[in-house]
Amino acid sequence: MTENLAEDLDELARTLDRDHVFHSWSAQSQLSSLVVASGRGCRVWDHAGREYLDFSSQLVNVNIGHQHPAVVQAIREQAELITTIAPSTVNLARGEAAKRIIGHAPSGFHKVFFTNGGADANENAIRMARLHTGRDKILSTYRSYHGNTGAAIVSTGDWRRIPNEFARGHVHFFGPYLYRSEFWATTPEEESERALHHLRRVIEAEGPSSIAAVLLETVPGTAGIMLPPPGYLAGVRELCDQHGILLILDEVMAGFGRTGRWFAFDGYDVRPDLITFAKGVNSGYVPVGGVVISDPIAATFDDRVFPGGLTYSGHPLAMASIVAALDAMESEGVVENARVIGETEIGPALVELAERHEVIGEVRGEGVFWAVELVADRETREPLPAAAMGRIKSGLVARGLLPFIQDNRIHVVPPCVVTVEDVAQAMPIYDEVLSTALEGEG
Amino acid sequence: MTENLAEDLDELARTLDRDHVFHSWSAQSQLSSLVVASGRGCRVWDHAGREYLDFSSQLVNVNIGHQHPAVVQAIREQAELITTIAPSTVNLARGEAAKRIIGHAPSGFHKVFFTNGGADANENAIRMARLHTGRDKILSTYRSYHGNTGAAIVSTGDWRRIPNEFARGHVHFFGPYLYRSEFWATTPEEESERALHHLRRVIEAEGPSSIAAVLLETVPGTAGIMLPPPGYLAGVRELCDQHGILLILDEVMAGFGRTGRWFAFDGYDVRPDLITFAKGVNSGYVPVGGVVISDPIAATFDDRVFPGGLTYSGHPLAMASIVAALDAMESEGVVENARVIGETEIGPALVELAERHEVIGEVRGEGVFWAVELVADRETREPLPAAAMGRIKSGLVARGLLPFIQDNRIHVVPPCVVTVEDVAQAMPIYDEVLSTALEGEG
Repeated sequence: MTENLAEDLDELARTLDRDHVFHSWSAQSQLSSLVVASGRGCRVWDHAGREYLDFSSQLVNVNIGHQHPAVVQAIREQAELITTIAPSTVNLARGEAAKRIIGHAPSGFHKVFFTNGGADANENAIRMARLHTGRDKILSTYRSYHGNTGAAIVSTGDWRRIPNEFARGHVHFFGPYLYRSEFWATTPEEESERALHHLRRVIEAEGPSSIAAVLLETVPGTAGIMLPPPGYLAGVRELCDQHGILLILDEVMAGFGRTGRWFAFDGYDVRPDLITFAKGVNSGYVPVGGVVISDPIAATFDDRVFPGGLTYSGHPLAMASIVAALDAMESEGVVENARVIGETEIGPALVELAERHEVIGEVRGEGVFWAVELVADRETREPLPAAAMGRIKSGLVARGLLPFIQDNRIHVVPPCVVTVEDVAQAMPIYDEVLSTALEGEG
Repeated sequence: MTENLAEDLDELARTLDRDHVFHSWSAQSQLSSLVVASGRGCRVWDHAGREYLDFSSQLVNVNIGHQHPAVVQAIREQAELITTIAPSTVNLARGEAAKRIIGHAPSGFHKVFFTNGGADANENAIRMARLHTGRDKILSTYRSYHGNTGAAIVSTGDWRRIPNEFARGHVHFFGPYLYRSEFWATTPEEESERALHHLRRVIEAEGPSSIAAVLLETVPGTAGIMLPPPGYLAGVRELCDQHGILLILDEVMAGFGRTGRWFAFDGYDVRPDLITFAKGVNSGYVPVGGVVISDPIAATFDDRVFPGGLTYSGHPLAMASIVAALDAMESEGVVENARVIGETEIGPALVELAERHEVIGEVRGEGVFWAVELVADRETREPLPAAAMGRIKSGLVARGLLPFIQDNRIHVVPPCVVTVEDVAQAMPIYDEVLSTALEGEG
């Protein structure tokens, strides 16, 4: 491809995008013009060959890195066999994918329900929890994101609406977040204890027998990568058990390697009743998500119709990509790599960065799941304003690093296959941008 | 592959499925054991080579037939380039897919928002309608299916919940369905007129200024394939215009060839404000759906953030499959084939079947979108009981035909590429099963 032709393709992509593509979570007049044409591992590039180091994993989903050859090959092979089948039929790739996922789940989990992504994974976990318990309310935290669906079944007219008019009874509470404690706590232990006290009071005040489930991201992701403090998740489990409340752990972003473990909750003394997943399970190579179901909840629907479903549940192309991705992650030690590189490279480098930049209020995380919180003032912890965050984002992209920026934070979330060299390339970019983008900030 | 190995694979698929896969809309102890390993055109088969004539199009989605070589090839090629990117970036396949879809839309539509399927397409159309009008209520019919999501955003805690707590204000009304008229009508014209009167009264009684949109399947699908009677859709449009209400047409099942037209509404004197799609757009080869947005609604979000999104919006693998599917459907006259075969083969054959079987109460449809309504009594129109419908379903499968059965109806919904020979093979199977499965019914 000549250079001119390549530039033309990038320009064509930008023109078609501007003319015809409506984008998520955006004012449409202020869109990115960054073209992604291809990639490999921790890097993507446009048609003209401008390359970017991907420290966002796109939307924190490309855990295995871009274009892993085994996963690409599995998609190509499955595409030749059969791409799509009705969910009611049986397909070998689907059974193999479910088996692989169960292989990483705790004992007492044997069934997987597949969806198109994380939002409908949570939809179906909520549905199961409500029907299993016969209770209505779902408790979740204010600092959380569980997907963006909320009306299609209520607009549906036929019988499938009746058991599913569920967008009611959602109650929010505050989770632990020591750096911005809602509980005037000063130590992780105190934050944990007080957050549990707060949750207990919310449960009591809402009425325990009205509550079907507590829904938590094991490690809240987009909300700020807050690792649960000591004893918190075990305490939530205990509160749930006291009142017959189910615990749904949302592992959509935290699961499948991100924390350096297969499931984030493997690092805590807690066992959920339902696990939701998406993203890392196949790195998003084909849209997919799902719910891992513990035996008692699965048994509820042995003889009773489960009133939920979707056309692409257990889509063969997605299933083949799960099988290949999980097999490759296992055989290549991808999850272990994420753990080690977090411990020995990313963590120490970010701590060092914080020492050099007054603007960094806190660094927290593990594996390839880190938040760098930027503040206008270390004392007051006032978040760095949006305009400065915008300059930081542009500065990073201009220097060839794709960042994940949320509110006043940089999330350092490369693929789990990130190398020592990648980290060594990224850190000076963060360093330089934190120096230059904030000039004139005083 | 030896015959034994093939049988072993089918058995392995069934075992893994039973052990680990949780299925949509089912009591898990009563699942199908039909293995689909591969397919082509209107046929699928298991590992051992047992072949089925697919007159279901799976879930009425495989419009282009199974494993169309050009679409498979496009998926394989895109898989080599890039499978997944963040929705905020720009990608050529995404722009090309959007351009193709706009090419089939009416004038005044220029933007496409991509989702993972039909449910979240309707989710986002509802979101747009509410934010564009500043109104709350959504009117839809009782005999409808618009997807099964309804809680994830309400369980989300962060700011993205606030503009989206939308699972409220859903009001249902009755649509036209002459065979089981809710309006004591006796002719299509009367049904249309009375259904419009009913809708007008519901709008007045709910308060027109509280209503954001009327959401309708252009041709209600799973609900029974009821073609809108003369003047109905134009009348709905007129009612909407009188009151500043938007019209969302759900073309998830009816669109992209099913009726013998690109969009089902092309056959009626009506222009929607938002169009939702999924299924036929790429025949479900990769999970995808979306919303086609008219210019005034798109403009609402030029400078205002659209508060909706999803990780896999505009997924390159899905986009490449849309481009290939729509190009192939166009160059091979697939939509035209659906129209002609419906007119000259399926329609006449079903009418003849109805003449031979007292159990058939009504035949209705067009293109490759037909409902055969089975009744215990032609006078009372009492639906055939579920047990008899179950025997009909088993009888069809046993004779190598994959049917789509819903309530007391057989939906005759083969791929749009169905041939004269396929129809000639299918009709005697329906004929035989309608005779034998009902023996002993009296």
